[in-house]
Amino acid sequence: MIATLKFTTLLLAVVVCRATQDYGYKDVEEPTLGDSQYGSLWPLPQKVQMSTVAFKLSGVSFQIVDAKESSSGASCSLLQNAYRRYDEYIFPISRMQGQNKKKAFASVSELQVWITSADSECDNYPSVTSDESYELSVDSPVAVLKAPKVWGALRGLETFSQLVYEDEYGAKSINRTEIQDFPRFTHRGLLLDSSRHFLPIKVILANLEAMAWNKFNVFHWHIVDDPSFPYMSRTFPQLSQQGAYHPYTHVYTPSDVKMIIEFARLRGIRVVSEFDTPGHTQSWGKGQKDLLTPCYSGASPSGSFGPVNPILNTTYDFMAMFFKEVSTVFPDAYIHLGGDEVDFSCWKSNPDIQKFMAQQGFGTDYSKLESFYIQRLLDIVTTTNKGYMIWQEVIDNGVKLKADTLIHVWKGNQQQYQAEMARVTASGYQALLSTPWYLNRISYGQDWQAAYKADPQDFNGTDAQKKLVVGGEACLWGEYVDATNLTPRLWPRASAVGERLWSDKDVKDTNDAYSRLIQHRCRMVQRGIPAEPLFTGYCAHEYKGEVSTATLNQPTIISARGAVASSTLLSWRLWMSRMAPRL
Amino acid sequence: MIATLKFTTLLLAVVVCRATQDYGYKDVEEPTLGDSQYGSLWPLPQKVQMSTVAFKLSGVSFQIVDAKESSSGASCSLLQNAYRRYDEYIFPISRMQGQNKKKAFASVSELQVWITSADSECDNYPSVTSDESYELSVDSPVAVLKAPKVWGALRGLETFSQLVYEDEYGAKSINRTEIQDFPRFTHRGLLLDSSRHFLPIKVILANLEAMAWNKFNVFHWHIVDDPSFPYMSRTFPQLSQQGAYHPYTHVYTPSDVKMIIEFARLRGIRVVSEFDTPGHTQSWGKGQKDLLTPCYSGASPSGSFGPVNPILNTTYDFMAMFFKEVSTVFPDAYIHLGGDEVDFSCWKSNPDIQKFMAQQGFGTDYSKLESFYIQRLLDIVTTTNKGYMIWQEVIDNGVKLKADTLIHVWKGNQQQYQAEMARVTASGYQALLSTPWYLNRISYGQDWQAAYKADPQDFNGTDAQKKLVVGGEACLWGEYVDATNLTPRLWPRASAVGERLWSDKDVKDTNDAYSRLIQHRCRMVQRGIPAEPLFTGYCAHEYKGEVSTATLNQPTIISARGAVASSTLLSWRLWMSRMAPRL
Repeated sequence: MIATLKFTTLLLAVVVCRATQDYGYKDVEEPTLGDSQYGSLWPLPQKVQMSTVAFKLSGVSFQIVDAKESSSGASCSLLQNAYRRYDEYIFPISRMQGQNKKKAFASVSELQVWITSADSECDNYPSVTSDESYELSVDSPVAVLKAPKVWGALRGLETFSQLVYEDEYGAKSINRTEIQDFPRFTHRGLLLDSSRHFLPIKVILANLEAMAWNKFNVFHWHIVDDPSFPYMSRTFPQLSQQGAYHPYTHVYTPSDVKMIIEFARLRGIRVVSEFDTPGHTQSWGKGQKDLLTPCYSGASPSGSFGPVNPILNTTYDFMAMFFKEVSTVFPDAYIHLGGDEVDFSCWKSNPDIQKFMAQQGFGTDYSKLESFYIQRLLDIVTTTNKGYMIWQEVIDNGVKLKADTLIHVWKGNQQQYQAEMARVTASGYQALLSTPWYLNRISYGQDWQAAYKADPQDFNGTDAQKKLVVGGEACLWGEYVDATNLTPRLWPRASAVGERLWSDKDVKDTNDAYSRLIQHRCRMVQRGIPAEPLFTGYCAHEYKGEVSTATLNQPTIISARGAVASSTLLSWRLWMSRMAPRL
Repeated sequence: MIATLKFTTLLLAVVVCRATQDYGYKDVEEPTLGDSQYGSLWPLPQKVQMSTVAFKLSGVSFQIVDAKESSSGASCSLLQNAYRRYDEYIFPISRMQGQNKKKAFASVSELQVWITSADSECDNYPSVTSDESYELSVDSPVAVLKAPKVWGALRGLETFSQLVYEDEYGAKSINRTEIQDFPRFTHRGLLLDSSRHFLPIKVILANLEAMAWNKFNVFHWHIVDDPSFPYMSRTFPQLSQQGAYHPYTHVYTPSDVKMIIEFARLRGIRVVSEFDTPGHTQSWGKGQKDLLTPCYSGASPSGSFGPVNPILNTTYDFMAMFFKEVSTVFPDAYIHLGGDEVDFSCWKSNPDIQKFMAQQGFGTDYSKLESFYIQRLLDIVTTTNKGYMIWQEVIDNGVKLKADTLIHVWKGNQQQYQAEMARVTASGYQALLSTPWYLNRISYGQDWQAAYKADPQDFNGTDAQKKLVVGGEACLWGEYVDATNLTPRLWPRASAVGERLWSDKDVKDTNDAYSRLIQHRCRMVQRGIPAEPLFTGYCAHEYKGEVSTATLNQPTIISARGAVASSTLLSWRLWMSRMAPRL
């Protein structure tokens, strides 16, 4: 009755009408749409055994409960919050508690969540070493989710919710299933940029929610940059007073930041803040005198400013105090220190900088001055006991780094970034890939496929080098996105990156992915995220534009139907009966 | 005090910090951001004289009223609806009626709307010959908007609302201004596709609203196509029963259609429906037996179907009845009959078609068969007293057309579409351009500029030929858009087309346009449309995602501030004072 299905790619191909209007252009390629034997699972777990035996879930009596043996009890609010969230995803209409009625069919009455290690880590922050593994066994009358830590339980709850579907009559159903799962990479990040456009808190929260559905675990918060400084610093309040787009409507207060970090923690997501220096700092200069380098036009200052001034002691005093604050505000063990795209022209124009260069024996090699700055900055941050991430330029320029530094690769074409990954890991550093996942760059058609095909371990290197790849990050830089368009532009395109970073490296059948992703996208829409369509078609529960702020903590779902979404191009009469995963 | 400013391009250039992160890519070009002397006007009127003399508008007493001399009185609900709409745009917070207090400053207490011709056309549908011209004179204590017909009054009300700004203290202000305005082209359309994805009514209404703000006057409703048939026909209800994605949640009922047409009429927008045949008809075949051509595989039918079957009399009987209904449901004088992209392979496979081809002496030239079908269809539609629009293939294939037919050019690259425009007009037909305005095709960066630079009269031809160009249409085909992403993807990109089709042909300074468009985009955001950002920056009133259905008829605006929006990259302290148009 139970067949092992791990990574076979049997595809029940369906002949579909290809309803394209091609406009004389031929660049749009659609994958073949079929049924995935994995239903709507996204990202695909490491090992799935699914049976055709289906059970019902009673809206009156089904519960998610702590297993008796669990090391984590009713006092773990992280889990209690998660139970409530997933209960509402599965049963969007509120329901009363009641007794199980005598039934004529087999059902799953409970999902028991069993934290197996003595320390559940319920009250911790997630970290780079957090164990996210879990095992899920769905049977009648009881389903069991076992995980060493709460982090795995969160991932398993999402998976459980993705297994639930509706039969033809709308009854919640789930098949007998065994899943063993763990992430391929420990760092699965998403970068959002709140400087080029201010992102309202609720946009950030909505996207943290969607990240959890896609098993992302790092929110890389590119919080400040040239255009604006929305981070409200307690130590240097003038930074946002002067540098934000508006001193109180366009800032993140300390309590906003705390709330975002806690919202993320409850979903097993780390918040890694980026305070990029010495470039990308125009907005810093507005509220901090003498921090930036005065540029010269001939013999006199031009009135404009360049990167952070690396030759003044006051610069380092400022950075020491600033990063001391940042290290307490953001609990994560890592800070992203930037270090990218330093423009040397202003430094070159400044006579004091020139003098300093001569004194230090740097000649005219301004990358040495950059390294001088970064080196001192890293020493400062090291005293806060934080690890750091930096963009690839820092290592390209030969700065000495701590062994646990993460190098963030973002430049070049495929050949170039693969060579960089090889170089970085050959030097013994850990690497993180973003180049193929700059999702701000859009193009017509199904560009999720290109993101899906990229693999951070695709480069020439030894096994030891490959092990130094900790993962990757999807990036959505902010030039062309704000609250009006960020969310539909990001999802489901980022989902492609989510599966690449979680699932086994052999999970790369684009057709199978397409079938699951269409359903996963409709599920996101049903849960209230306006994820854009992959192609012509419809969802069983279309976007109604009725997401409210309340949704973010306790999602209010629009329709009476459950969490399973339809395939595109299926007739409306068939979609419900086809949602059951096939064997 | 009053200077004539028509089409001078004096630009108060402002040095701005160019905060780009270029990712090693160099394809993003930003125009220079300065102040436009025309403030936030979009599209730019034909003639603007603006003074530095500013008046206030009182929230207690300002009113939009019918001029005493007006041929249109309080019984014209089109105008009364428009007064309410524009009152609410200008004063988003509801206010009480009251007496004008004694003031220390000059104010505008009334905008008098004066319909000058005997027939205001208040209860008409807008048509291809509707007069949209108007004259607007803003002075103290009275502003006067004169227009021959209500259509011009609607355009002038929009312009008036765009002239209102807030001074530093939030007081509504408007400068002494004289405007004479009329459209360059009579057909300024937007195509939305409700077949590839079903578009909820409220998405259509919201975009009609945005169209009016951009002075578009034709909603080209590509209502059905291969993937689905959401038009509910009274005569042939099986078409949507079988051919829609869902027979009642994904259809437009007769009352839905009526409501959309009336909503559009109140904004001076024609609704031109497209029922595309003989290709793009897969969804028709589900509910209408024998309408489509059975394809053959060798000697027997393959089970799949091709274009409309042109050799059966029943086909023409059906079309006659169907278009008779359509011609009554849609009051516009034109129907778009499609005629694009007919795939001949199925016709070629069918032995009955082959026999018919031989009988008719068509040889193997299937475009003759296509023309045969189209010719008969046009004869049928002609009996309904409608004019028709068709895609360019129909004329490319040499079908005989009525003199008043509009040829819709959509294919090829710039050289090809310009040649086609020349050919079409040389044949004496009216032409409509869409090729450069396929807004479904997206690319990274400021692609509004390419749309802005295209001009439908840019081709080699005589003045007589140029006069046959009636305008153009922005098209947003539906493969990759639905309710989740349509609106931000469309606006403000479609605004570029709106100005090209309304304003004088010499209005083409991209820098000036950029400055106005940034403010126009923020105004759309403030009025409740999530128009996406053009670049890094912020609006004085950011998108709050709080648009409700109620907004569509009586816009509820989020903030207490008025209709004028900020420039990007300006410090928050300065934006308010800079909103006054400069001389």
